[in-house]
Amino acid sequence: MTLRVPVAGLREGELTLSSDTDRYVTRVHRRDVGDVIEGFDPETALEAEGELVATRPARVRFETPRTTTRRPRVATTLIQCMAKGTKVDAVVRDATELGVTRIVLAVASRSVKRGGDVDRYRRVAVEAARQCGRGDVPELLGVVDLSAAWGHGQGRGVLLDGDGAPMADVLAEAEAVTLAIGPEGGFTEDEHAAAAAAGFVAGRVGAFTMRTETAASAALGARWALWAGSAVKG
Amino acid sequence: MTLRVPVAGLREGELTLSSDTDRYVTRVHRRDVGDVIEGFDPETALEAEGELVATRPARVRFETPRTTTRRPRVATTLIQCMAKGTKVDAVVRDATELGVTRIVLAVASRSVKRGGDVDRYRRVAVEAARQCGRGDVPELLGVVDLSAAWGHGQGRGVLLDGDGAPMADVLAEAEAVTLAIGPEGGFTEDEHAAAAAAGFVAGRVGAFTMRTETAASAALGARWALWAGSAVKG
Repeated sequence: MTLRVPVAGLREGELTLSSDTDRYVTRVHRRDVGDVIEGFDPETALEAEGELVATRPARVRFETPRTTTRRPRVATTLIQCMAKGTKVDAVVRDATELGVTRIVLAVASRSVKRGGDVDRYRRVAVEAARQCGRGDVPELLGVVDLSAAWGHGQGRGVLLDGDGAPMADVLAEAEAVTLAIGPEGGFTEDEHAAAAAAGFVAGRVGAFTMRTETAASAALGARWALWAGSAVKG
Repeated sequence: MTLRVPVAGLREGELTLSSDTDRYVTRVHRRDVGDVIEGFDPETALEAEGELVATRPARVRFETPRTTTRRPRVATTLIQCMAKGTKVDAVVRDATELGVTRIVLAVASRSVKRGGDVDRYRRVAVEAARQCGRGDVPELLGVVDLSAAWGHGQGRGVLLDGDGAPMADVLAEAEAVTLAIGPEGGFTEDEHAAAAAAGFVAGRVGAFTMRTETAASAALGARWALWAGSAVKG
């Protein structure tokens, strides 16, 4: 299998690999001049084959890049309410690995943190994509008020809630999915009502309350389990 | 609904609440003398009703404790390979919230960190259970060599692997489940072979590689999605 490595600023022609990628290609995988590798750049969703033309430092001559095929096939939107510290970074990283196509960062009534640097979150997503081999990054929207977030969802909308129905009941057969995750203190009654008015239903994963930074991974695990299930059954 | 709060060392008779719980009961939820609350202690898996008999500080007279019913109904074992920094703490916390009944900490060939303080992980589990309202804690075993870990699983064994089958294919209809998650560099070929010999099959969540600290939450999300599905269908 062709070795696949992240290359920032991927374009046709000769490029010097970053020192990390250089080490990975020439030392960990012992590739040498004449070997072919695949470069990918999640920031632009491009990928290209290239031939190693020099080492120390490693230089690669890339062919014309094409749009990546290593991207999610179905739409998954995550509405994530702002939370303290680096929790949102962790959620963006996890959601990128878990194939989310759009992240909407929202401020809820109980959000303690009410702003955020979206450029920074985008960098976190790019770095996560590079590490997990994903060819693109999720679209990042926000930071918006939660009332404006519902409209950015697609397909079946599920609001994560400990008192909701099992995910199998609310996600079965849905191709496009939007998952909404509240801040540390959860959604208020008004927010629950607004979500319901926007067509969202309440779903839960497991039996116990989850912290906001665990909910995305667990809910996305459920999403893929049920989607794969439908794909196989269909 | 009766307010449910963690009480370390729960027993019959009068106890003073911790300052955090005191604040939660008397200030956040405005309970006063004469009100009834429910105390639970994940460390002993006990719970009991009690009447608030004083405030500042809050004291509660508890009835005879009973074994908790707020515990997972089906067996889920997590074999987690040791990983760097505080990753294992995070996994223990997530797994407790997500209803794992047994955690086996194991050293794999590619584990950089090879030892761990099991008492510390147990404290992490107790704290996570308190926060999420879970009435018990997972059993914690280890740190053992990975070769000894396979035997601690129960039911259907799934080794998380990016090249595995969709979780829906490997978990369908399984009541007891064991999930095995590798260290940062993944399992070696020999470890894959040993897992297969022990009856484990390879399963994946989503399409991309996951970090070891995300895999447990995502896999457990899948586990509950598929189990709830079976429960509803059955």
